[in-house]
Amino acid sequence: MKRRDFIAGAAAGAGALALTACSSDNSSTASAPAAPAVQQERITWRMVTTWPRNFPGLGVGAQRLADRITQMSDGRLTVQVYSAGELVPALGTFDAVIEGSAEMSHGAAYYWQNKSQATSFFTGVPYGMTSRELAAWIRYMGGQEIWDKVYDQYGVKGFLSGDTGTQAGGWFRNELTGLSDVQGIRFRTPGLGGQVWQQLGATVVNMAGGEIYAALQSGALDAAEFVGPYNDLALGFHQIAKNYYFPSFIEPGLATEAVVNKSKFAELPQDLQRIVEFACQAEYDQVASDFYANDPIALATLVREHGVTVRQFPEEILRAGAEAAKNILGGLRTSNDALTRETAESYFNSLAILRTRTEQTDMAFLRAREQFFQP
Amino acid sequence: MKRRDFIAGAAAGAGALALTACSSDNSSTASAPAAPAVQQERITWRMVTTWPRNFPGLGVGAQRLADRITQMSDGRLTVQVYSAGELVPALGTFDAVIEGSAEMSHGAAYYWQNKSQATSFFTGVPYGMTSRELAAWIRYMGGQEIWDKVYDQYGVKGFLSGDTGTQAGGWFRNELTGLSDVQGIRFRTPGLGGQVWQQLGATVVNMAGGEIYAALQSGALDAAEFVGPYNDLALGFHQIAKNYYFPSFIEPGLATEAVVNKSKFAELPQDLQRIVEFACQAEYDQVASDFYANDPIALATLVREHGVTVRQFPEEILRAGAEAAKNILGGLRTSNDALTRETAESYFNSLAILRTRTEQTDMAFLRAREQFFQP
Repeated sequence: MKRRDFIAGAAAGAGALALTACSSDNSSTASAPAAPAVQQERITWRMVTTWPRNFPGLGVGAQRLADRITQMSDGRLTVQVYSAGELVPALGTFDAVIEGSAEMSHGAAYYWQNKSQATSFFTGVPYGMTSRELAAWIRYMGGQEIWDKVYDQYGVKGFLSGDTGTQAGGWFRNELTGLSDVQGIRFRTPGLGGQVWQQLGATVVNMAGGEIYAALQSGALDAAEFVGPYNDLALGFHQIAKNYYFPSFIEPGLATEAVVNKSKFAELPQDLQRIVEFACQAEYDQVASDFYANDPIALATLVREHGVTVRQFPEEILRAGAEAAKNILGGLRTSNDALTRETAESYFNSLAILRTRTEQTDMAFLRAREQFFQP
Repeated sequence: MKRRDFIAGAAAGAGALALTACSSDNSSTASAPAAPAVQQERITWRMVTTWPRNFPGLGVGAQRLADRITQMSDGRLTVQVYSAGELVPALGTFDAVIEGSAEMSHGAAYYWQNKSQATSFFTGVPYGMTSRELAAWIRYMGGQEIWDKVYDQYGVKGFLSGDTGTQAGGWFRNELTGLSDVQGIRFRTPGLGGQVWQQLGATVVNMAGGEIYAALQSGALDAAEFVGPYNDLALGFHQIAKNYYFPSFIEPGLATEAVVNKSKFAELPQDLQRIVEFACQAEYDQVASDFYANDPIALATLVREHGVTVRQFPEEILRAGAEAAKNILGGLRTSNDALTRETAESYFNSLAILRTRTEQTDMAFLRAREQFFQP
């Protein structure tokens, strides 16, 4: 089956290009030697996403990424976005790109843990890298190369395409004074983070974001974590659970990915390949900026208008969480899968280097500013 | 004077495009109706920079930015890079773009303080925003809009194009135990940061990066700050001054800018405008990642192979530095120039919001990881 869509009336595209040429200086063009007619191919790609349409930060970022590609290519590569469920279900997007029924997807690598446990490292792991550290690993310390090896198994390639930054720790009906308050509470938190909280004694429940509110209301849940203030505000958890805990030590960053089918990508001319790649990188910065600006604005609204109490996790919980994270990530470092082991080693070796900068430079400055600078 | 360069043999460009079209599926092309010949205009831009060629992080980033634009446009917009002094002196690059003798420049906005004191805020100020905070302000909290107003006065437009992140505090011949050790030391540190150190009692000296080594060696300087380990290692300061202090509270981030002549930019077709804009944004992430990965690697080399001692500034100096920064920035908030006042107010209002996230979320996580997580 031929899946790439071509716009039949290619003359329309040529017309647009001619208009473009007319809008700037034509004098040189007029004097240039006659050139053969260039038939510009126009391609349409389908981007399937794991996000609801207009989902703050992430769904909006997927649409903006598509628009960037379309704009930079002047429509030669037009990317059409399908939100979760429109073409395939959210968790079917990776397979859709593997099979080629979509050329591109937008989501988070750790959704594909059932394919490879290495995927968690390209999104974020408990007590792991911040967004700046992750980008440094991916771009300069071998991260992209090992990600490529993992995804080569499926005939696809991943690019970083956004990051939430450090998330919120969760909404809790009751205050947490220590580990004893965690025992048996029914807490919605998925993935490796869920495994951490399970080791701390919580009864971990997995459910989709849209089901959390009703479960909190009915008492089926005592606590839930989702993303951070920017996303959480819209879902209304604050109407039921007033204690908003920080930080998420299980999600110190959440990187999104854009995944392309390698064959479809290889068919693109080189300029369009670079446009796809660099649009993803620009989006990585844009989404991180979006969360960085809008999380604190949303949090101020939650506190001032909705009576939410912002709390920090007690030290006992942070400490036990770190031990649990070490155990769980230790399992990945000794995985039966060689690529998962290799990914974990690369990740932890890089983190050991990167954190020296974070701790001696970035944190040293931030501590001084927090303590001494109130302009 | 007509300054845009056209490649005379436009047929060469058409040939390249034809090759591109041939390398992918032609079946649709063959069946499409005949289209009029499209003469693609090929443009060359000159990018003048404030950096030496191949200067780590920043000069390399300027060249890579030019390459991205050339690659994404398939050479329709070819950007040629001129290092400091090749076409114009480093500090003549902004004027070159204003006058149109170059279409684009790459440097740092605070070099143009003699034109507008507002420019410091688009680069970084003592005790000010980190790179993530700055990007959030520029992209989501009105920063770009006010930057545009400031640069509209000169007929140019600036884009963020890189960031060093938090820099090193400087190389000191002798250990600093407190403010008394700062009195009268001859310290090379430029700009607003130099004003801060002057208020702390240092004798501030301004000289180009290339002159620092000899001045340290001759005893004309007791101390110097430049960028951070990645850049400093190459200049050999560690051979003379062994105390390397962190963090730079005067440069918590240094954003670079790409500046375009507004008329030249407006003449570009829209797809090329977006290519320039989004290439800058991708570079902002790339340069930040470069420093984030390579600063700690260089620092490890300085410590292990060159016997450098990494030290943190004493609290007394950090506290006095914050007071001095407040005084100096207070002067900008009450500047005679309305746009400088407006910029300062926007910057400080945004910082007040952004730091709540940095302190309650990012730092809270980093403190916990530093204390509890040694994988």
